Amino acid sequence: MRPIDALVNSLPGGRVVTDPDVIDSYARDRTFVAPGKPLGVVLAASRDDVVTTMRWATEHRVPVVPRGAGTGLAGGATASDGSLVLSLARMTAIRELSPVDEIAVVEPGVITADLDRAAREHGLMYAPDPSSYEISTIGGNLATNAGGLRCVKYGVTRDSALGLEVVLADGRVLDTGRRTMKGVTGYDLTGLFVGSEGTLGVITSATVRLRRAPAAPPATFAAEFGSLRDAGAAVTAIMAAGCQPSLMELLDRATLKAIDDWRNIGLEPATMAMLIGQSDAADAQAVAARMERLCLDNGATFVAVSSSPQETEELIGLRRMAYQAKERLGACLVEDVCVPRSALPDMITAIEAAAARHGVPICTVAHAGDGNLHPTFVFEHGTAEPPPEVWAAADEVFTKALELGGTLTGEHGVGVLKRRWLALESGPVAQDVQHGIKAVFDPLGLLNPGKAI
Amino acid sequence: MRPIDALVNSLPGGRVVTDPDVIDSYARDRTFVAPGKPLGVVLAASRDDVVTTMRWATEHRVPVVPRGAGTGLAGGATASDGSLVLSLARMTAIRELSPVDEIAVVEPGVITADLDRAAREHGLMYAPDPSSYEISTIGGNLATNAGGLRCVKYGVTRDSALGLEVVLADGRVLDTGRRTMKGVTGYDLTGLFVGSEGTLGVITSATVRLRRAPAAPPATFAAEFGSLRDAGAAVTAIMAAGCQPSLMELLDRATLKAIDDWRNIGLEPATMAMLIGQSDAADAQAVAARMERLCLDNGATFVAVSSSPQETEELIGLRRMAYQAKERLGACLVEDVCVPRSALPDMITAIEAAAARHGVPICTVAHAGDGNLHPTFVFEHGTAEPPPEVWAAADEVFTKALELGGTLTGEHGVGVLKRRWLALESGPVAQDVQHGIKAVFDPLGLLNPGKAI
Repeated sequence: MRPIDALVNSLPGGRVVTDPDVIDSYARDRTFVAPGKPLGVVLAASRDDVVTTMRWATEHRVPVVPRGAGTGLAGGATASDGSLVLSLARMTAIRELSPVDEIAVVEPGVITADLDRAAREHGLMYAPDPSSYEISTIGGNLATNAGGLRCVKYGVTRDSALGLEVVLADGRVLDTGRRTMKGVTGYDLTGLFVGSEGTLGVITSATVRLRRAPAAPPATFAAEFGSLRDAGAAVTAIMAAGCQPSLMELLDRATLKAIDDWRNIGLEPATMAMLIGQSDAADAQAVAARMERLCLDNGATFVAVSSSPQETEELIGLRRMAYQAKERLGACLVEDVCVPRSALPDMITAIEAAAARHGVPICTVAHAGDGNLHPTFVFEHGTAEPPPEVWAAADEVFTKALELGGTLTGEHGVGVLKRRWLALESGPVAQDVQHGIKAVFDPLGLLNPGKAI
Repeated sequence: MRPIDALVNSLPGGRVVTDPDVIDSYARDRTFVAPGKPLGVVLAASRDDVVTTMRWATEHRVPVVPRGAGTGLAGGATASDGSLVLSLARMTAIRELSPVDEIAVVEPGVITADLDRAAREHGLMYAPDPSSYEISTIGGNLATNAGGLRCVKYGVTRDSALGLEVVLADGRVLDTGRRTMKGVTGYDLTGLFVGSEGTLGVITSATVRLRRAPAAPPATFAAEFGSLRDAGAAVTAIMAAGCQPSLMELLDRATLKAIDDWRNIGLEPATMAMLIGQSDAADAQAVAARMERLCLDNGATFVAVSSSPQETEELIGLRRMAYQAKERLGACLVEDVCVPRSALPDMITAIEAAAARHGVPICTVAHAGDGNLHPTFVFEHGTAEPPPEVWAAADEVFTKALELGGTLTGEHGVGVLKRRWLALESGPVAQDVQHGIKAVFDPLGLLNPGKAI
């Protein structure tokens, strides 16, 4: 009997897929990284399925690649040859939602926006909102410590994670954290799992923090600038004035141009950058007016402010169009550096220089309030992987980000794509202890090998 | 040559203290836990001193007990026989304070309130404010993941820690985290060290997040209630209304009585609980009025609201007097359970029942917005350690907190005092992996042995 048959026999019917075509659709994420040929896919429906799978994997020494919806941008869910893909996408129950305690207990396959909608029925929200939140899962968000647009005000996924149920490599079940707002018993295992990209265990349930949803509709502004430096200065001024925007996005000219070519937004020739910001405070309109003033003080050539839900949707829609607009230009390598906020203009300048030097079109959007930039390197559609000049430009961008006191990845994760730069950011001691921690949880190295660390 | 002489020889002059009387003053924290006889105390003045000390400790297999100001309430800094005490209290430099990036880089011996004051010169604040913040250090706050009064709005120490420089047991230097607001490269080692109570490494520098300080003075209210249940209901209503108080403290009758006996605050016979709350929002006065209304709606018998700094100081002063007032009654075992907010009234009822059943006076204050209660068990002054009935009552309180979905410790840490209950909260798998992690960082078990996990 093949090992995979033993797994089929020990799980309820229909859980294991071995049809090569179906397997292939579970072997990739949203990157170009080419997967290997996995043995099969488990469509887990319960924690017990995960326990059975991991026990089997340990017994047969089969590497396991856990995945949510496969929307990752770092290759973290790319399956390798001979591995088993473990999909948590069918574990979609919101087990509990407590309006009084402002927590929810959810399975990993819950779509992030669905949890947010469920919370809003009680006047609450689930704050983390990666751009993918209509298609990505809580489990995947936890695995990558996903950020998003609102995290400039509400923090990243880690800031909403209170406790986890995790199945370890050998099938043991570990409960981490708590249901309370505070707690310091033992080491912070919850924090350790968040962002560990499926290399330490498989999350089968999460207790997450909800927050009060703003009562009034937000007020939104869009401001155009004749230079990226002016836009960067406006961001700094807005943050320093304590405006606490709930969203603060920057789009560079290349991105605006891609959107304009697609949707004809009437882009002015002199517009080099656009800032889209939002306040969801009780006095949102007044805060937005203050942010408008700070944009004008810092050289904005045009600012529009709105608190009508429809106009707000249109302004935010511009931002959400960015990725699709870029995909029309070619294949995309989406990067994710993060720098101290003050270094935003220098980072943007360096990105433009890298684009020019290597002849690679780069479109950049940024969660500007956090200093988190997504330079997107565009290359020819149908190319199997980014050509050398893209990597050369990316290398320059990463090196500059680190030189400016920044990091390789603000919210997407290391996956496989950023591993070759890892040693530049994490010194040998940090890498050594991380491998030590990995060995505590997964001594046989079965969980998502070759990723993250 | 004794091992300690080798250490004296390898450190700059004056760093090592071996006078038994001086040693004794570095061997305790704020608990009654009796220390052993350490070999000596190192008064580290630099990272290099710490490296030298840890290399020596590894070479000679000497346990090391790191400490800040010794204000801990769980026995975490209690020195053991034959150990070396490593004091970081002299490393008091604020190395950097960047108003634009809203970060500071500080040495571990910086007094928490000093960092806050330094930040306020730039319109910023360092948010975490344990009650001890005028005498405790950042290093100690990080080691215990200290909470405080403001953390109901701004989070605990962990939420302000971005990166650390840590000396490991063998003297290697590990840099964790980053200077940016976001970042997901590698495992969250920063979070792992925060709250690890000196058992994984010695923090020699921290990059912390600062926040904009509120521009206007806060508005404060104090409300009296005829029952603890009413006060608990008011807390729930205030939090559910999205008031986002910057402070929300509950004092029970026993605490109020102790303060009244000391300072004669005119306590009404029918007052069973007091809530003291604050808003530091832009519209603080309006929010305080809303909180006042919610107190009255939930049975408050009297509410006073003020935004004059002096009256605010008086109201908050009541809360700050609580501990000293209790110390007048006897020796104190200060506990620190945390429950989901909805369980606050049940927890208080259980504390009162335990007090009555075991004949132990218990005074309770709570960071009520977080569900974090500090029941203080009072016993006879001069008693070497709490008598059996105090432990019996404490046992009941801990068990009930866990039963209500809570935790043994919201912000003080496990230290030595709570280790005997640890297995009730952390299951065997969690304990096993924590010991595994400990062994990665400190294979010889030299760092603060017998604490935390």
